Amino acid sequence: MSAFSSVGILGAGAWGTALATVAARAGRRTVLWGRDGAVIEALNARGENPRYLPGIALSDRFEATTDLAAAADCDLILLVTPAQTVRATARLAASHVAEGCPVVLCAKGIERETGHLLGDILAQEMPQARPAVLSGPSFATDVARGLPTAVTVAAEDGDLADAIAAALSSPTFRPYAATDVVGVEIAGALKNVLAIAAGAVCGRQLGKSAEAALIARGFAEIRRFAARRGAEAETLMGLSGLGDLVLTCSTTQSRNYAFGTKLGAGARVDDLLAAGQPLAEGALTAGVARNLAKAEGIDMPIAEVVADIVETGLGIDDAIARLMGRPLKRENG
Amino acid sequence: MSAFSSVGILGAGAWGTALATVAARAGRRTVLWGRDGAVIEALNARGENPRYLPGIALSDRFEATTDLAAAADCDLILLVTPAQTVRATARLAASHVAEGCPVVLCAKGIERETGHLLGDILAQEMPQARPAVLSGPSFATDVARGLPTAVTVAAEDGDLADAIAAALSSPTFRPYAATDVVGVEIAGALKNVLAIAAGAVCGRQLGKSAEAALIARGFAEIRRFAARRGAEAETLMGLSGLGDLVLTCSTTQSRNYAFGTKLGAGARVDDLLAAGQPLAEGALTAGVARNLAKAEGIDMPIAEVVADIVETGLGIDDAIARLMGRPLKRENG
Repeated sequence: MSAFSSVGILGAGAWGTALATVAARAGRRTVLWGRDGAVIEALNARGENPRYLPGIALSDRFEATTDLAAAADCDLILLVTPAQTVRATARLAASHVAEGCPVVLCAKGIERETGHLLGDILAQEMPQARPAVLSGPSFATDVARGLPTAVTVAAEDGDLADAIAAALSSPTFRPYAATDVVGVEIAGALKNVLAIAAGAVCGRQLGKSAEAALIARGFAEIRRFAARRGAEAETLMGLSGLGDLVLTCSTTQSRNYAFGTKLGAGARVDDLLAAGQPLAEGALTAGVARNLAKAEGIDMPIAEVVADIVETGLGIDDAIARLMGRPLKRENG
Repeated sequence: MSAFSSVGILGAGAWGTALATVAARAGRRTVLWGRDGAVIEALNARGENPRYLPGIALSDRFEATTDLAAAADCDLILLVTPAQTVRATARLAASHVAEGCPVVLCAKGIERETGHLLGDILAQEMPQARPAVLSGPSFATDVARGLPTAVTVAAEDGDLADAIAAALSSPTFRPYAATDVVGVEIAGALKNVLAIAAGAVCGRQLGKSAEAALIARGFAEIRRFAARRGAEAETLMGLSGLGDLVLTCSTTQSRNYAFGTKLGAGARVDDLLAAGQPLAEGALTAGVARNLAKAEGIDMPIAEVVADIVETGLGIDDAIARLMGRPLKRENG
């Protein structure tokens, strides 16, 4: 049936574990690689990831291992480590991955030090891989529990995207194939920045109307940035764009939104960024996004105020006043 | 300063009253017309609309009246009655409105009996008016309280849209001008149908991921419908499209979303549609939208299941299974 009989998943965090259940549920032989021996042992012994998905009994079984070669030796590979560690993982796994093997990027972000998208990193570190990307509105807990989910799977070769979508599809997980890899990547990286802003509006109790306006105007910023990089408008309007943005800005289940709500309620940025706090990827991405936008002459006022909030401690009220005080303009100007 | 010194508002419900505060706050002489003498008296006596915005002290004062001619004799008119009564109100006011007077439609919906958009109705009943439309993410309570809000104001003549935007603008109310009247109208009408579906997913406890996917795929339906009518994709991605959709699907402050959550939790449609229940415009629009889509060959599976839920009592689980069980496809196919 499927073009892929086995799926290897690199990264046994919440999302990697959830995607392992997806592949297993779809009928693929599934191997999940992680570095934490205790997590791997618990996954194999009792079908639970006690560190990242505590309390969720994974109904679909798969093999977990600390042997990278075993996972990298599959027909299809999903790379699911955090954005800032994708380079290290790709480098580590490169020698185990066969020529032409499809590798699906499942993290979201921009490399802080270089401004590179994750696809660029994969091309540099694992040039023999055929790159693809999976993104969309999908909390790991929802997916692990088997609640209905729909995502985008993009590869430049549409047939490859179709084959990956088919390999992961099940009655509760519906992948839509697409070809605009860059569009999917950019939408995934920038929505985290907006989620911080939307959370701040919520935490400051400025009303749901203000929050929705901020999401819409922030979406216009993402579209401007993505268009400059050659992304298609259609992609941005889809699951990986609009869909994921809506999810990320809808609940404090999202770390970035939660980070914003605390800022809006008066927390100090330094305290929120201190070690031991949950990672808000958007706080890392805001500055590099602002810098890229400035360098390319793209108007991104919301990303800019988020970067200023994170870097210089700009206050929420001053940030709102700055956004509302801009000259009146045409919506699509 | 402004091209318009006076603003007449037809309809003293929650949204009409909120928009009267907007016009007054922007420095316009403002006249609000309503039929309920007790509401009008309370507005004039103590700056409160006890029926539709109870407990909110309106800080920006305006004149309220039961004299339609007084409101219709202004430089700029906002028509703010519910969608299904726009025709009756326009007919009633037509003889009082000067040739070439701009009339801004502020309701959202499709006339059930005819399938007409509100702009069509205005052209039929008040042909001397210059039509415009105001829409966007804006709960009346947020706007009446002076919380920050941004909306779209569209007119085919961009200069007119600019002038209306300038006339209503204040530090807490930011209108963006646009020219795509039909796009704004369609987005406003169809989002209510989607909100019912999103609410049902919430009420059935299917997870935020499923809800976000439904919003994204529903947005694709709205775009298909709007494109067929000549709307611009940009409009759909803006405040009146994406922004309003996000707001309407985010909280039970929205009557349509609340209607959906009750359905999802097991309430019977007939009970929810019974007299005395709050009006969920989307329940009225779903059937006519589905019929228009079928007649024009537009694929709208979500609008279709909402219509079937409302009309034939289709169950939520069957509706979800129908949506998830469709053949795999390209996202932008």
